[in-house]
Amino acid sequence: MISIGVDIGGTSIKGASINEQGQIMARFSLPLIAQETGDQTIARLGRKILSFISEKKMQKKEILGLGIGCPGAINSEKGIVDYSNNLKWNDVPLQEILEKVTGLKVKVTNDANAAALGEACFGAGKEASSIILLTLGTGVGGGIIINGQVYQGNQGKGAELGHTVIEIDGRPCTCGRQGCLEAYASATALISDTKEAMKKHPDSLMWKLVNDDITKVNGKTPFDAKIKGDIYASEIINHYIKYLGEGILNFCNIFRPEAIILSGGIAQQGKDLLNPLIDYCEKRNYGFKKTPKVKITTAQLGYDAGVLGAASLFFHNQ
Amino acid sequence: MISIGVDIGGTSIKGASINEQGQIMARFSLPLIAQETGDQTIARLGRKILSFISEKKMQKKEILGLGIGCPGAINSEKGIVDYSNNLKWNDVPLQEILEKVTGLKVKVTNDANAAALGEACFGAGKEASSIILLTLGTGVGGGIIINGQVYQGNQGKGAELGHTVIEIDGRPCTCGRQGCLEAYASATALISDTKEAMKKHPDSLMWKLVNDDITKVNGKTPFDAKIKGDIYASEIINHYIKYLGEGILNFCNIFRPEAIILSGGIAQQGKDLLNPLIDYCEKRNYGFKKTPKVKITTAQLGYDAGVLGAASLFFHNQ
Repeated sequence: MISIGVDIGGTSIKGASINEQGQIMARFSLPLIAQETGDQTIARLGRKILSFISEKKMQKKEILGLGIGCPGAINSEKGIVDYSNNLKWNDVPLQEILEKVTGLKVKVTNDANAAALGEACFGAGKEASSIILLTLGTGVGGGIIINGQVYQGNQGKGAELGHTVIEIDGRPCTCGRQGCLEAYASATALISDTKEAMKKHPDSLMWKLVNDDITKVNGKTPFDAKIKGDIYASEIINHYIKYLGEGILNFCNIFRPEAIILSGGIAQQGKDLLNPLIDYCEKRNYGFKKTPKVKITTAQLGYDAGVLGAASLFFHNQ
Repeated sequence: MISIGVDIGGTSIKGASINEQGQIMARFSLPLIAQETGDQTIARLGRKILSFISEKKMQKKEILGLGIGCPGAINSEKGIVDYSNNLKWNDVPLQEILEKVTGLKVKVTNDANAAALGEACFGAGKEASSIILLTLGTGVGGGIIINGQVYQGNQGKGAELGHTVIEIDGRPCTCGRQGCLEAYASATALISDTKEAMKKHPDSLMWKLVNDDITKVNGKTPFDAKIKGDIYASEIINHYIKYLGEGILNFCNIFRPEAIILSGGIAQQGKDLLNPLIDYCEKRNYGFKKTPKVKITTAQLGYDAGVLGAASLFFHNQ
């Protein structure tokens, strides 16, 4: 049996047919069109899926269903996209439209949940039964897998791990709270901290790395400069590691999962991120003796985590 | 069918036979004896249970098992009390000893998990499938019920909700971290804040309430003084509500449970605690539109939550 996984991104929609072993059989993609409404885009996606099924000569009866990962606030119980800032969608009855157009069973979840499920089933978490995924990108997204199943919370509104306050009265967050993990550990926050440090320190090596053009700063800049010995970059990374580390230790104490998996732009720094982070967390592990270690690692599936996880909404008794 | 629930406390052990409707059929208790080792206490508990069964003319075949709630760090998978500061126990193979002495099936969990399960099955959370329980006592304990089941984390070391940092570099916590919720929201923290404020403000009404004896301050003192119009008490309560509220909002965003239930000494303040707390949380609910409300309430079962929850380890497909 196979399942079709769909990952709705900021500029395009990617999909794939996937078997229960997590092998991608065939792929498709379609662009997002700015003028379209959400309902129109979803109807177009449905028609694309039908033509994909017919092109690839798949039998509908061998397709378990259609799993969708979508950014934004999703009501996974009703299959509705309540709203998505990135897509500018409001109240899109995604499941209803897609089921009508394709005749297939449809399940929808938040994109971070889908990525978490993908990594849990086929990636960095496949040996574990309970994992936490943190995406370190524009924001800090979260996915919770408990006993192999996505935990979504009431009406799909849980797992907002980036919106947990780690500093009372701290930095304003886009969500309206102050001091959220996202305001310190997102790529956005790291880039903003980097720019601020550069402005304070015209002698920082980081200026050279971006050819004196501060608009070229990205999440890699401070990591690269730290390796080259720039003390200002070291300070930025230490600060970043401290806040991310405290957030991770919180999730260790709350869930004591087998693994915490990092994905998104910043996770691409690999061991330059992991080594100091693991060091920070292991030195400060919760006071309990005999507390089982939580593996901290980076995602393995790259951009395929989304489609694999979305497809997995129909595998493994989800 | 019935189950026997046991709640190991700081000075005594309470037990009860309980049916699947949560009715307590009969009770027993036995004192803790300071000179005993953990192994000796558990063996004595086992013998007490055998005599309880025979006194009450129960048939062993109608007893599903023996559920135990125990303070401290519990390895629920192996049924071992890794250590308990209160009881001064280390590596007590509780499950093994009790099964040997009684011939019954035994399950063991942390006391806060047991209380959470009790409230979820028969108390303030019985209409909900996913709840979070916070005990506001000497420390801040946590219990997580997901889809009606206790979530314990790897080797029973999860749900340490009090040991989540909400203020980086904040107050030192007994666990070794700094800025944990426990360091602000426990009864211990509230009492310490109250005493500090009293020392600063000899004109506070709180002095009168304790007959000028600061050692008589308890968690009720600032609540009582606030009602009587003492501004220093109001400040203490506002600070307490803010930190507890931010912690609760974190758990709302992480779990989006149906209810968050407060128990322990401070929860006995009832609406004097709940009214300002709910007000604080509702004004600051996470930015999502359409986010389902989380009911914030106090526990209903009082001291029986522990035995009811421990017994429930054998009910409802735990």
